[in-house]
Amino acid sequence: MPAMRDPFQLGEDRFLAWLASRFRARGGSAFSLGIGDDAAVLAGRPARVVTVDQMLEGRHFRFRWIVPRALGRRAVERALSDIAAMGARPEGVLLALSWPRGGEWGRKARALFEGLGGALDRRGVPLVGGDTTRARVGHAALAVVAVGRPWPGGPVLRSGGRPGDLLAVTGPLGAAAAGHLLCSGRLAPPGDRAGRRAAGAALRAFREPTARLELARPLARHARALIDLSDGLGLDLPRLAAASGCGFEVEAERIPVAPAARRLLGERRAFRAAIAGGEDYELLAAIPPDRLPAAERAVARAGGALHVVGRLTAPGGGGRLVRRGAFAPWPAGGWDPFRPPLDAGRPGRVDRAGRRRSGRR
Amino acid sequence: MPAMRDPFQLGEDRFLAWLASRFRARGGSAFSLGIGDDAAVLAGRPARVVTVDQMLEGRHFRFRWIVPRALGRRAVERALSDIAAMGARPEGVLLALSWPRGGEWGRKARALFEGLGGALDRRGVPLVGGDTTRARVGHAALAVVAVGRPWPGGPVLRSGGRPGDLLAVTGPLGAAAAGHLLCSGRLAPPGDRAGRRAAGAALRAFREPTARLELARPLARHARALIDLSDGLGLDLPRLAAASGCGFEVEAERIPVAPAARRLLGERRAFRAAIAGGEDYELLAAIPPDRLPAAERAVARAGGALHVVGRLTAPGGGGRLVRRGAFAPWPAGGWDPFRPPLDAGRPGRVDRAGRRRSGRR
Repeated sequence: MPAMRDPFQLGEDRFLAWLASRFRARGGSAFSLGIGDDAAVLAGRPARVVTVDQMLEGRHFRFRWIVPRALGRRAVERALSDIAAMGARPEGVLLALSWPRGGEWGRKARALFEGLGGALDRRGVPLVGGDTTRARVGHAALAVVAVGRPWPGGPVLRSGGRPGDLLAVTGPLGAAAAGHLLCSGRLAPPGDRAGRRAAGAALRAFREPTARLELARPLARHARALIDLSDGLGLDLPRLAAASGCGFEVEAERIPVAPAARRLLGERRAFRAAIAGGEDYELLAAIPPDRLPAAERAVARAGGALHVVGRLTAPGGGGRLVRRGAFAPWPAGGWDPFRPPLDAGRPGRVDRAGRRRSGRR
Repeated sequence: MPAMRDPFQLGEDRFLAWLASRFRARGGSAFSLGIGDDAAVLAGRPARVVTVDQMLEGRHFRFRWIVPRALGRRAVERALSDIAAMGARPEGVLLALSWPRGGEWGRKARALFEGLGGALDRRGVPLVGGDTTRARVGHAALAVVAVGRPWPGGPVLRSGGRPGDLLAVTGPLGAAAAGHLLCSGRLAPPGDRAGRRAAGAALRAFREPTARLELARPLARHARALIDLSDGLGLDLPRLAAASGCGFEVEAERIPVAPAARRLLGERRAFRAAIAGGEDYELLAAIPPDRLPAAERAVARAGGALHVVGRLTAPGGGGRLVRRGAFAPWPAGGWDPFRPPLDAGRPGRVDRAGRRRSGRR
């Protein structure tokens, strides 16, 4: 165990590395994988994946920004996204809920369960257990546990990538970050019609994300490594690369920036939102080049698309952003769309969605 | 779905019944059991049980009452108790942690992980995943997920009891409730030596409970129904009986009241604490009379003991307390040791440990 006085001063990734070394899975454990993937993997027939995701009022959400119905849906989709990121399908969800009582809270609880139930029904996933407690007023908290079963070829870990594998994302990025800025009042809603339409799309992307569950099956078959982009490409791509023991290279021009983010933030900030924004719940896959055509066809059949943005490189190369032929270090770290242009490697201070941001401190 | 305006006005058991009807497990689901047991049951080879337990600062604990190290241990034991209550052994734990930063919080985090790690190491259970986020100062929150594998004969549900089965608890009750009263300043610590010893035992029982994991194996073999007493006999026994479709009868004189509770609270209040106190983390089993001798031997070999307190009766009989030959309705409900003598069926207002209390409202 490394010397540690305050585990939270380490940054999330180093903290998780410390946790993983402290709590190494033992030989003979039914869990074949330690800490550090989107979900834990449980041996058995079939194998299972298990994940837990906590959302706290004032930290991950505010009712000024999101209505309870959308919160219920969002809590489900966040957890299911971790299941999709393992190349698995969800089989059941448990909910630990701490909720204030009295006043408006009863109505809010009903709306929360409507959103949650609607999302589960749409996915065909049962709620199978949990725990409810009364919270102090003003401090609602949810923890959603999702259990799933890998598709053939899965579970797909973060660690399976090899140098030369192509890196592909499953959809446009940055809209959720723009939606978050609108919600929090840091971005004024535009007055024109196209702007209002873009604002609507961005708010939906932030408040009502949809896990890419339908792509888990084709990606379990064709991808060697998989991660969801809930923390943003800026953080999640280095995680996949590090777990796979690779460097990586991304071509700036190939990153699919969401049109709504472009419209609301302008080209430069939208690009930054696409890298550092997070909350888009798209998937990032590492796919061997010779598998790409088959992967693209299978993903298209499932109603999705793959956007190749770069590739994994040899170990030791670190991460690089290629822009108009020039190389720059990977702009890892948090999200602040109003700071100066990409300052390679320096993390932002603003923690958009409550996830602890890593980077140099 | 019953009409519902505020699900939280229903009381926990009716709320869970509503949830269970709204979120009924579908045919073909991998989860063979819906909401309403200590853990969800997942089909497979082997079958698995999954549970989640949330603990919020200001609601389930206060750092004035419990040091972070004990909190870490307590969080683990609470979750493992749900696994034991299914007749299962734990295979892994996931932790969702929301923790403030700065000041004393770093030291507290280290101590939390020491307590948590110590408890897991002692049990031989790996920490296999989770989620950490930064909390607002003063609002730490933990959610512990435990996954386990049933022992032969398990999983043991709440619903397997039959009329005539004997009801047995695995240890003395009421000490944790006395410890809670001491922590919260509602009970003055006694000045004499025997009193101080009792206070120490009560505080340990409250702060550092130990799940009855070692009894899960013999009880999986011999018990027909099983539940843990985290909410107290007053609430948990009616739950087991209702799930089993039975009434029940308990002899007051046979309830094992913890000596420390007797010493600190006096006979009458200690008895009430043993029924309504909760947090003792003993198990309650329904055992067919002809299996009792074998069950007692197997439990003794595992280092425990069975205290028979009563029996399940025919459906429709409700719950009864037999005292000096007279019958009284079962004193269900919450825990307030300073209210007038047992007033059958009326729930208390004080929610000792954050669990939502059921009963008439």
